[in-house]
Amino acid sequence: MFPKTRDALDLLEKIAPARLAESWDNPGLQVGSYFQEIKKIFMALDPTLEALRSASDRHAQLLLTHHPLIFTPLSQVDINAYPGNVAVEAVKGGISVVSVHTNLDVAAGGINDILAELLGLQQVEVLEEKTGVDGAGLGRVGDLPKAGMLTSVVEDVRQVFGSDNLRLVTNGDVRVRRIAVVGGSGGGLTSRASEKGADLLITGDVGHHHALEAKSAGIALIDAGHFQTEKIAFRGFAERLRGLVDELGWGVEIETFEDENDPLQNRPGGNPQPF
Amino acid sequence: MFPKTRDALDLLEKIAPARLAESWDNPGLQVGSYFQEIKKIFMALDPTLEALRSASDRHAQLLLTHHPLIFTPLSQVDINAYPGNVAVEAVKGGISVVSVHTNLDVAAGGINDILAELLGLQQVEVLEEKTGVDGAGLGRVGDLPKAGMLTSVVEDVRQVFGSDNLRLVTNGDVRVRRIAVVGGSGGGLTSRASEKGADLLITGDVGHHHALEAKSAGIALIDAGHFQTEKIAFRGFAERLRGLVDELGWGVEIETFEDENDPLQNRPGGNPQPF
Amino acid sequence: MFPKTRDALDLLEKIAPARLAESWDNPGLQVGSYFQEIKKIFMALDPTLEALRSASDRHAQLLLTHHPLIFTPLSQVDINAYPGNVAVEAVKGGISVVSVHTNLDVAAGGINDILAELLGLQQVEVLEEKTGVDGAGLGRVGDLPKAGMLTSVVEDVRQVFGSDNLRLVTNGDVRVRRIAVVGGSGGGLTSRASEKGADLLITGDVGHHHALEAKSAGIALIDAGHFQTEKIAFRGFAERLRGLVDELGWGVEIETFEDENDPLQNRPGGNPQPF
Amino acid sequence: MFPKTRDALDLLEKIAPARLAESWDNPGLQVGSYFQEIKKIFMALDPTLEALRSASDRHAQLLLTHHPLIFTPLSQVDINAYPGNVAVEAVKGGISVVSVHTNLDVAAGGINDILAELLGLQQVEVLEEKTGVDGAGLGRVGDLPKAGMLTSVVEDVRQVFGSDNLRLVTNGDVRVRRIAVVGGSGGGLTSRASEKGADLLITGDVGHHHALEAKSAGIALIDAGHFQTEKIAFRGFAERLRGLVDELGWGVEIETFEDENDPLQNRPGGNPQPF
Amino acid sequence: MFPKTRDALDLLEKIAPARLAESWDNPGLQVGSYFQEIKKIFMALDPTLEALRSASDRHAQLLLTHHPLIFTPLSQVDINAYPGNVAVEAVKGGISVVSVHTNLDVAAGGINDILAELLGLQQVEVLEEKTGVDGAGLGRVGDLPKAGMLTSVVEDVRQVFGSDNLRLVTNGDVRVRRIAVVGGSGGGLTSRASEKGADLLITGDVGHHHALEAKSAGIALIDAGHFQTEKIAFRGFAERLRGLVDELGWGVEIETFEDENDPLQNRPGGNPQPF
Amino acid sequence: MFPKTRDALDLLEKIAPARLAESWDNPGLQVGSYFQEIKKIFMALDPTLEALRSASDRHAQLLLTHHPLIFTPLSQVDINAYPGNVAVEAVKGGISVVSVHTNLDVAAGGINDILAELLGLQQVEVLEEKTGVDGAGLGRVGDLPKAGMLTSVVEDVRQVFGSDNLRLVTNGDVRVRRIAVVGGSGGGLTSRASEKGADLLITGDVGHHHALEAKSAGIALIDAGHFQTEKIAFRGFAERLRGLVDELGWGVEIETFEDENDPLQNRPGGNPQPF
Repeated sequence: MFPKTRDALDLLEKIAPARLAESWDNPGLQVGSYFQEIKKIFMALDPTLEALRSASDRHAQLLLTHHPLIFTPLSQVDINAYPGNVAVEAVKGGISVVSVHTNLDVAAGGINDILAELLGLQQVEVLEEKTGVDGAGLGRVGDLPKAGMLTSVVEDVRQVFGSDNLRLVTNGDVRVRRIAVVGGSGGGLTSRASEKGADLLITGDVGHHHALEAKSAGIALIDAGHFQTEKIAFRGFAERLRGLVDELGWGVEIETFEDENDPLQNRPGGNPQPF
Repeated sequence: MFPKTRDALDLLEKIAPARLAESWDNPGLQVGSYFQEIKKIFMALDPTLEALRSASDRHAQLLLTHHPLIFTPLSQVDINAYPGNVAVEAVKGGISVVSVHTNLDVAAGGINDILAELLGLQQVEVLEEKTGVDGAGLGRVGDLPKAGMLTSVVEDVRQVFGSDNLRLVTNGDVRVRRIAVVGGSGGGLTSRASEKGADLLITGDVGHHHALEAKSAGIALIDAGHFQTEKIAFRGFAERLRGLVDELGWGVEIETFEDENDPLQNRPGGNPQPF
Repeated sequence: MFPKTRDALDLLEKIAPARLAESWDNPGLQVGSYFQEIKKIFMALDPTLEALRSASDRHAQLLLTHHPLIFTPLSQVDINAYPGNVAVEAVKGGISVVSVHTNLDVAAGGINDILAELLGLQQVEVLEEKTGVDGAGLGRVGDLPKAGMLTSVVEDVRQVFGSDNLRLVTNGDVRVRRIAVVGGSGGGLTSRASEKGADLLITGDVGHHHALEAKSAGIALIDAGHFQTEKIAFRGFAERLRGLVDELGWGVEIETFEDENDPLQNRPGGNPQPF
Repeated sequence: MFPKTRDALDLLEKIAPARLAESWDNPGLQVGSYFQEIKKIFMALDPTLEALRSASDRHAQLLLTHHPLIFTPLSQVDINAYPGNVAVEAVKGGISVVSVHTNLDVAAGGINDILAELLGLQQVEVLEEKTGVDGAGLGRVGDLPKAGMLTSVVEDVRQVFGSDNLRLVTNGDVRVRRIAVVGGSGGGLTSRASEKGADLLITGDVGHHHALEAKSAGIALIDAGHFQTEKIAFRGFAERLRGLVDELGWGVEIETFEDENDPLQNRPGGNPQPF
Repeated sequence: MFPKTRDALDLLEKIAPARLAESWDNPGLQVGSYFQEIKKIFMALDPTLEALRSASDRHAQLLLTHHPLIFTPLSQVDINAYPGNVAVEAVKGGISVVSVHTNLDVAAGGINDILAELLGLQQVEVLEEKTGVDGAGLGRVGDLPKAGMLTSVVEDVRQVFGSDNLRLVTNGDVRVRRIAVVGGSGGGLTSRASEKGADLLITGDVGHHHALEAKSAGIALIDAGHFQTEKIAFRGFAERLRGLVDELGWGVEIETFEDENDPLQNRPGGNPQPF
Repeated sequence: MFPKTRDALDLLEKIAPARLAESWDNPGLQVGSYFQEIKKIFMALDPTLEALRSASDRHAQLLLTHHPLIFTPLSQVDINAYPGNVAVEAVKGGISVVSVHTNLDVAAGGINDILAELLGLQQVEVLEEKTGVDGAGLGRVGDLPKAGMLTSVVEDVRQVFGSDNLRLVTNGDVRVRRIAVVGGSGGGLTSRASEKGADLLITGDVGHHHALEAKSAGIALIDAGHFQTEKIAFRGFAERLRGLVDELGWGVEIETFEDENDPLQNRPGGNPQPF
């Protein structure tokens, strides 16, 4: 007998309890049925039409995404516009959509712990503790096994995330030993990272004001991409989930959406590119 | 060429502008498509599964209800529970659901004007004006052509609404000339009705505290049923809409859900009844 | 030496601590003096002029009601209008008015525990726990000693509450084993009752939207009357209080207002009735 | 036929419309009846027991005060504590209590215009306009007919208010031409007075932080007493009211409470005084 | 090696933790540098230009005040107006400004404990406890070693605070045993003092409404001046701080601003005074 | 006679009235004196230490920036940290700092009108009107003189802004006729741009969620950089200001900070770069 959506949610609750999510977030079942039988789980960062159609092509019954399909509670289901179009196609295709978002970012063993591990950080701590929950919180901070110059750390980071264009804030080629990392959008944690002694913060979606703030606080900052930082960490989470599902003997397959792309494409100067 | 949902919404906007709705309300498209072609409109007070299935049986493309399907914005579409179940069945059946609620209650010519007319009131005024909108507001108040005793007015009201059990608040068999009426749930307007000189307020969903308030303020009150007061007025609105649609030459049929029942059934003492 | 209002309040505090009351509620001394000597307590559901005059006729010094005289804090004491008229008559008659309201609803051994007992429920639990207070909370839920059909449970409920007209929501004559009960106005606890496995919720003041909600959630609902459910439970509380007062050897008499009536009278069709 | 409380309120509404009052204020009927016949009005700054008893001794039916009896809406009427004790004695003595407070402060011709006139100011303007109401607002500002030194203005102010101890903030004996005045408690308008070019602000209830603020802004400040500034202005208002009542031919007497005293007594050093 | 501003703040944090401050308060570093070397601390109640210049004349590097320089967060630093002018002069003169305000009022051993000791109170308790912090809270209450008449207590209080004009609220020359004291501005604690059994509340900045409240509640009240009550207590705190600094062997001098004056000067009648 | 800071602010108020600024913004004088004489104005996007030092090197008395120095009101002036360090250096160097921020973005002839002109848009309208202000609002939208393919528009945009790396969201090489533009950070206006018929939105600081939103709404999006879009527009504003100042015959020079750089540097793959 195959598990149901409800069972999958119960398993996720153990890994990333819903109460850890930010107050504005909406993890959990987005659309579908708690009683749907699950034989295959398809995992993608974003619940786009492309992700849903791939899930359908791969005969999955559960699309598990990082970002919720329903961010702002819906006052109508417009079948011609996002997210109504995705919801309707999910229902028609017999696919339930479930998300683990800021609860997974924050949880012990979640997105940010995976990132810290990928970067080889040691003596990893939580960057900003969630009041009253041990080992959980926004971001992580830890030490490189061996300090290095920023120029060389930048190339290591590019290696890890496979980003074709990194964006960098710094006052020069400083020595880096202690690194803070926040998957997704973490520019707002610059001063926190500075307080925790980090020489460098690695995150995505860095805007002008956070860049200036970092520069004047004298902490270096790498914008490695919201998509790139989370994509690789969510793939790491897929592996972990596969292990847990196997231990349970559920007989459920887990696939990840390999063709998912960053919606923001770089267009460096001098060379017009095809789309 | 048949009109589309968007055209139906434009027509409703003229009759009952969305900006007249209460701030907590959610009139307009509930589920479906703005571009759906409409040949038949099916009208019901509540967007229940029964109403939707009847709409489907009658080959309607638009289910037009008084109460919104989505009252509280949805943070998930659970296909096994209301309102997700109705939304999904609507989508699968190619039916769009649209509501006109407090905007219709409040509009000139809307639910409460229809009720005032059904009760034969004269010199009808708005009970509580909507700031800055002429002729619109909560409830209506007007005079009977001829004053009568409450005992006899009660029987007239029963006649109009066909209620098998009315509920009454009074200090005795008073003389009634001026009547306030609020379709649906209007117990909170007791003191307003009193200020406007009404001898009697007719409404539905009257609770204990509003009953006491009426009694101590010396105004009589008839609870003729949330369902009964609105059902008859919404049927009146259907007739008006039919006229407008015919004038436009749309070739669209309008049917009303005749089998719709009050979910609250009276169970008078002494005689156990079948369901 | 007779006890004073302050002593009566201290006793009530032990039974139904004020901190258990809802934030919008106003239990405790409504009007009068903390130092008034009490020889007789007169108990009524509502602090109406009739209740006060009966208290006066029976030579009581304390009118103890369930509903507060001052619901909304007063910005004026208008002696011609409720509640100013009652307050003034109380002061002139040397009667203090005290209320125990949602604190008594919620307390262990309070209104809802009395209702659960009257209905013969077993393994009774709190329906919605008050955070941090053991055994206290809104409503109760428990099992009938023996499951029965709804038709027959309805007649038992009528028996208990003496209601001449019950109102019922159901999808048919279902089997009932587990019952939730909320004295007064409890339609908003429908989904909570459903989660706790109740087949039926018994309460009062049920409006149209809660009726629909119950119907679509598949839980039966009996509206046995706000007045009827609380009247009988408050009488049960009077007995309990009498016992406690006797134990204390206070020599204080406790009477209840037997002639108190539901302000909402049923007017079934076909038979015009005198007032 | 004598006028009623309602008539007196209608007259006051013309002089000092209730909508001009601050949002936290509670002018109008405090306790009593809108239908009470008024033969004599007794006026006092504060609705104390002494004021009420004097009103009673003088056979007044209306006690008209500046400060409201009910400042914070009442959740109980405790007959042993202020304001319940005053309310109960008013009711028993057949006296209604009415207040005109910040609506009178702010109105054209109200407390602050009377103060400006008593101080002989010319080209008087409103100090802080009430948005959308011509000639109304907090405080007044105007010019002395002839500039003078602060030392001498201080003595003139003492003359006007009869204060035995003034309190003064200044950086020396400056020349004063333009004066702002705020009856009661106006220390918070120091910077506004400065912006309007005042050399001096006269008000009451000045605390340490407002004193420092004045000193650093270089504006002089006289604390002539909350009680003293309002007492004299309210007496001026009594005269105006007497004129209006006579014009209306009401045959109503108006008396003021001549024995009313500042609850804050000065105790200068060196000479222990009797109470 | 001399300590730095940071060290001084760490020491103050032990005495009066910042978390004890009221939510609207802003204790701590106002302007300057955490790394400034401190050889002399100059202490004043208010961060006025005079205080800063005296600090500069005495070659202090730290101006430690009771009232914060920045009360309302600054949206601009205007160098010609307070507090910008003080801030700029502090920066140019190499002086850091630090405040300990409501955290010191409330702390065990702080302003109010010092006042209680100066008044010779015994069995001193906190007047209004700070939730969850032992021994800390607003005001103190305790007993005189021997009860006395108010007339004589007034003279003792004058002695302690050296006030040339006290202001007094009372219903006559009552017997005083239990006294509440609140440095600065404590009129709002009148009813709390009454509940705690105080016969008398000693504080400053008493306005008309608090005076009336005290009078009707039957508790006596002495307004001994915001400045006078705090000045003497802050001087007491200076002594305590000197002791602690000496124990630490910091070699830092502490001076107090002896010429600081109350910005509010009394001007008793009959005798025009020079400034 | 040279103008003062106050005169410069009066001139800016005519161009970009402060009331047009967003509620969270803080335009106007940041630090300095309203009375400072101005001979040279130095303009920079950000009030960094570098900008201030350049202003000082060029002997300017006014540093006019787009972004405010004080974003969040200051509760302390820490001279070792931004913005305290800049404020202190400004004061010591006799330089006043003034900002025109969202009021300039929104004003007619402001940042966004300049951008629309630089892009050669025609029939330009406001993208999101500021209620009640003609011609003012967030962003602009207009038509290209001649529609073109996105690939080619991208290169034109790069030309205008001189961005070495653009970031692009699109579903392919679409035809572009109508363009919306928002200087700085405008990803939140994607759906507004779509409603106004734009094929493309050009802005900066685009995050992942806004990118996805654009993609699912089918509108193309170019992130041309917060710094790049505003830098060029602010330079355009400098020219306009120079013209106005010349007309007034002020004899004031205006220079712009030519060496200002984007704090976010692109680091494309494959080629480690010096800093």
